[in-house]
Amino acid sequence: METISQSELLNIAVEKFSQLPGIGKKTALRLVLDILKRDENFVFSFAQSITNLKENIKYCKHCGNLSDQEVCPICQNTSRDQTTICIVENIRDVMAIEQAQRYQGVYHVLGGLISPIDGIGPNDLNIAQLIERIETGQVSEIIFALSANMEGDTTCFYLSKILKGRDIKISTIARGVAFGGDLEFTDEVTLIRSIENRQPYNG
Amino acid sequence: METISQSELLNIAVEKFSQLPGIGKKTALRLVLDILKRDENFVFSFAQSITNLKENIKYCKHCGNLSDQEVCPICQNTSRDQTTICIVENIRDVMAIEQAQRYQGVYHVLGGLISPIDGIGPNDLNIAQLIERIETGQVSEIIFALSANMEGDTTCFYLSKILKGRDIKISTIARGVAFGGDLEFTDEVTLIRSIENRQPYNG
Repeated sequence: METISQSELLNIAVEKFSQLPGIGKKTALRLVLDILKRDENFVFSFAQSITNLKENIKYCKHCGNLSDQEVCPICQNTSRDQTTICIVENIRDVMAIEQAQRYQGVYHVLGGLISPIDGIGPNDLNIAQLIERIETGQVSEIIFALSANMEGDTTCFYLSKILKGRDIKISTIARGVAFGGDLEFTDEVTLIRSIENRQPYNG
Repeated sequence: METISQSELLNIAVEKFSQLPGIGKKTALRLVLDILKRDENFVFSFAQSITNLKENIKYCKHCGNLSDQEVCPICQNTSRDQTTICIVENIRDVMAIEQAQRYQGVYHVLGGLISPIDGIGPNDLNIAQLIERIETGQVSEIIFALSANMEGDTTCFYLSKILKGRDIKISTIARGVAFGGDLEFTDEVTLIRSIENRQPYNG
């Protein structure tokens, strides 16, 4: 280990911090020296909050979202439409959609996308759990909210084959020019697709 | 607390991280999600390293430097010149000088500079301990390595008055144009002072 300080404990803390993404040795040292100056209360609750991430955060047994309980607050929430499932790649996507505070259904977090190049197949994803939810017969609509790339398309295709023949409405989120987006700064593929998929104008 | 995720524990960890300097909410979330993916080993030793900062790091009772023991490795090191004390503002300065691996004396960390504007007087600094070290009669040279600003100058002046009348050599680190530094990019004060304080040329 590089010698930064005469305190080996400080060097270890710097080393740990610098293993986090985007944190170099200098930033790590700055953070550690800042923590040194904090009161005990902050330092211990900070360390505890990190331990909690590993010890006490669970994945919701229904949807795979992060949760402090066995079942996440969204799946527990009876005022949400539990029959509409929005399928997303990861928990960041749930956060993004929840941030908008409009979607009233529930989620299913796949934990990745099918990607033969990276060796990720359907069995590596949280798909068995999705099928289990569908088998209950209480799902009326599935919305695919996956990335518009090869992996996303492959995953949509795979899942739609599984869902075929069931009485479930399947949809995918709309693609097109972003609201407030400038046409001239929109990429060509999005632009052409948004023309092809034009919608009736309801004035 | 802002709702970022359905996991309150995750939100707390993000909140704690975002209290560190230069870490915003988005960066904090990125760090926390990264930690979530790490193995237990890393997470627990990371949390422990933070707790250690508060529980087990001490300040050397001689020089005020950070140390895992009562006396820091530099003050314990008998192969270093224990009669030459370099006076610095803080532990970062010790790190900087030690990084250069040339200075063979020891240090004294003041923990700040005298600054009437900020309400910092001599009693707020680690000066009593310095006097105690000097009274042992085992100090032959004091080197001021303080910032070249009003606070640094005030502190130098104050300490030099205390040291007056003792058989101790007092010096201050050289100021001037940096080695490898371009004259044209050196600030005016440094440039003029470096001409005034010119040294005999030894070819």
